[in-house]
Amino acid sequence: MERIRFLEDYQLGEVRETSGRTITETDFVVHAGHSGDFFPHHIDEEFCKTKPWKKRIAHGTMTFTIGIGLTATEINPVAFTYGYERLRFPRPVYIGDTIHSKVTVSDAHPDPKRPDYGQVVETVEVFNQNGEVVMFCHHILLVEKSN
Amino acid sequence: MERIRFLEDYQLGEVRETSGRTITETDFVVHAGHSGDFFPHHIDEEFCKTKPWKKRIAHGTMTFTIGIGLTATEINPVAFTYGYERLRFPRPVYIGDTIHSKVTVSDAHPDPKRPDYGQVVETVEVFNQNGEVVMFCHHILLVEKSN
Amino acid sequence: MERIRFLEDYQLGEVRETSGRTITETDFVVHAGHSGDFFPHHIDEEFCKTKPWKKRIAHGTMTFTIGIGLTATEINPVAFTYGYERLRFPRPVYIGDTIHSKVTVSDAHPDPKRPDYGQVVETVEVFNQNGEVVMFCHHILLVEKSN
Amino acid sequence: MERIRFLEDYQLGEVRETSGRTITETDFVVHAGHSGDFFPHHIDEEFCKTKPWKKRIAHGTMTFTIGIGLTATEINPVAFTYGYERLRFPRPVYIGDTIHSKVTVSDAHPDPKRPDYGQVVETVEVFNQNGEVVMFCHHILLVEKSN
Amino acid sequence: MERIRFLEDYQLGEVRETSGRTITETDFVVHAGHSGDFFPHHIDEEFCKTKPWKKRIAHGTMTFTIGIGLTATEINPVAFTYGYERLRFPRPVYIGDTIHSKVTVSDAHPDPKRPDYGQVVETVEVFNQNGEVVMFCHHILLVEKSN
Amino acid sequence: MERIRFLEDYQLGEVRETSGRTITETDFVVHAGHSGDFFPHHIDEEFCKTKPWKKRIAHGTMTFTIGIGLTATEINPVAFTYGYERLRFPRPVYIGDTIHSKVTVSDAHPDPKRPDYGQVVETVEVFNQNGEVVMFCHHILLVEKSN
Repeated sequence: MERIRFLEDYQLGEVRETSGRTITETDFVVHAGHSGDFFPHHIDEEFCKTKPWKKRIAHGTMTFTIGIGLTATEINPVAFTYGYERLRFPRPVYIGDTIHSKVTVSDAHPDPKRPDYGQVVETVEVFNQNGEVVMFCHHILLVEKSN
Repeated sequence: MERIRFLEDYQLGEVRETSGRTITETDFVVHAGHSGDFFPHHIDEEFCKTKPWKKRIAHGTMTFTIGIGLTATEINPVAFTYGYERLRFPRPVYIGDTIHSKVTVSDAHPDPKRPDYGQVVETVEVFNQNGEVVMFCHHILLVEKSN
Repeated sequence: MERIRFLEDYQLGEVRETSGRTITETDFVVHAGHSGDFFPHHIDEEFCKTKPWKKRIAHGTMTFTIGIGLTATEINPVAFTYGYERLRFPRPVYIGDTIHSKVTVSDAHPDPKRPDYGQVVETVEVFNQNGEVVMFCHHILLVEKSN
Repeated sequence: MERIRFLEDYQLGEVRETSGRTITETDFVVHAGHSGDFFPHHIDEEFCKTKPWKKRIAHGTMTFTIGIGLTATEINPVAFTYGYERLRFPRPVYIGDTIHSKVTVSDAHPDPKRPDYGQVVETVEVFNQNGEVVMFCHHILLVEKSN
Repeated sequence: MERIRFLEDYQLGEVRETSGRTITETDFVVHAGHSGDFFPHHIDEEFCKTKPWKKRIAHGTMTFTIGIGLTATEINPVAFTYGYERLRFPRPVYIGDTIHSKVTVSDAHPDPKRPDYGQVVETVEVFNQNGEVVMFCHHILLVEKSN
Repeated sequence: MERIRFLEDYQLGEVRETSGRTITETDFVVHAGHSGDFFPHHIDEEFCKTKPWKKRIAHGTMTFTIGIGLTATEINPVAFTYGYERLRFPRPVYIGDTIHSKVTVSDAHPDPKRPDYGQVVETVEVFNQNGEVVMFCHHILLVEKSN
């Protein structure tokens, strides 16, 4: 589960894809209870029927949680999360959709302020079963240099 | 629970603070099971004892989920989430911390591409019980103009 | 989330309605596990097929929990729950029903034994998506007088 | 798990006591998420420290759910719940308390409107580990007559 | 809930059957999150469509957990679990199946190494709604002798 | 997450160890609700204080579920579970224990009845933070031969 990768070990354009996960009504209910966000967009089917989106739609925070969670398969002990940029949700996630994530190393450069570290940018795209992007973000990592 | 607010109704500097929530071991366990992220940083107390942070630390996706969830108290039917920028986690959240969120309207301007909409930026800061910022982001909303 | 309302501030006939919530199979399973009540009426579809009600029916304790939970949108710091009377479940709640609650101030009078308090009775009705009452009760509050 | 008991089989004063259950922080968190009631009385330890009750207190709906759930050990196929009366919560339930329920048959009489049924009243008392009553109610059952 | 039964009280061939429980998508999701096993066989509907089994199948650990859990209706304070043998899953459990368990006392003999105890073997079979065996095991109990 | 391994690829004595997981009170409560086993050994702290084991002890089905779940890190598409033998729980698991699993290939041989398959036996040992074995079993796999 653990693999040491220094800044120099990240290759631009390197890609990994995760296994998939069907998003269930259970996930919707668990996420409402976990986040405390009971907006009817997510939990009131009758309300949604009267709206353009017609059906309950996933919380953005859930798509982010599960989309990023799917990528958590390997620990790099010399890297840690600095933050996220450009988090977008281009299409809704509905109950029954199956999503998976694709991670592309899109940038890697020394950190001007931290001489022992570099910044790695992983572009994370979350796809549904039709190949449509339902989430997108840049995950910024601080990664130790090898020497 | 619903209040219509058009672009023109947002005031720069306007602030609202949420009620608080104690982050429990239960939240950690629920979040691991919900996200599928079972990294030992979050669920292995013995592992954490050997690390600089000493104790289990919250998943970033959980701090985001609950920090944003706390703000979900009022629906604006003419606004929707466009995305998030500059999501950062300056300090860890530990089991037993109590967090709350503060939302500040930090920008509001017409959207150059969408004539009927403007963009509103809400700066969200999540604080722990010591007044320290544990999460920070810009929440970008698309909001209808009033006419 | 907080609004101070003294006994004198409650108006007879005053009504508020909550947003709605679709009751899911997840809620049934969570409630069985939370309450420890695994009676087949709630969790055994084959058993229910042989009974007049034909389908799994919600625990009364769940309809009460969610029906009352929906009303928890505003804290009155000078009021607290004294108890409940006449709790009834006139119709069953099935998986997929969408419920909401209506609260009517049906009585408000000084408390003969507690000179600083009055009793407020809120009649709570829980409706399904067909406008049928699935739960009914009187919620008795003790509320401070304004002087 | 099933035992047929007609109206005539209920003995006034008949008592049964349930096994016990320790109420955990997990139950508090699960109940907040299940009910949607995130009032700080139940989930914000810092808020509670500033109040007379000092610690997080259980939702009344949870004490009812678990207190009644503990009694669900035997199905009587010729009885069903008519409703509840006089539901009271004389003392708070805190995290770590261990509760159990005691059920006493306190009334049993023919139902004037339903010639084939009688009403049985079960007084339910829920006790904490110190023998203090934390919940009290009358559970009204409709029970078939034996002939 | 408690009944004392010594080794001599177990009758070969004695049978008890439990009530039933419908296995829901919720159980699948809860079990993935509880066990940490997110293999696509259990949670990825699209993956399963491409396999001979066509639909998500229950974790073996879940069928064991619920199949054994259904039998936990009566405590024998003079018996405890020694272990399990021959645990098999002859058919998959799908979402929507309703299972129940049948326990048969298939062996009972003194324990050669523990003079005060005997071993009781309970054969546990878990059936689906079509009467097919989906799980099978031998549950070995150590039970006190009566004298 | 996927690696094809035929019968011939398994080496006797081959070992892998999993990451760890702290078993929380939450896991106890979730497991009671998931399994339906509310025996006081697992959920009633006051009951346990009066017994030799003094504290709540984990359900055997939970130790099995999590102990096996920890090993679910890599899918072998040409192997599947045949069953489990000699499942034992030599020591109890308490709230706060941290467990991990060790898997040793202890046998691998052709299956006399299935010419295209062999049987692989993985001995699974689950250890607590003191290095004590809390669970033990043989996991029998059916694995395709390479030709």
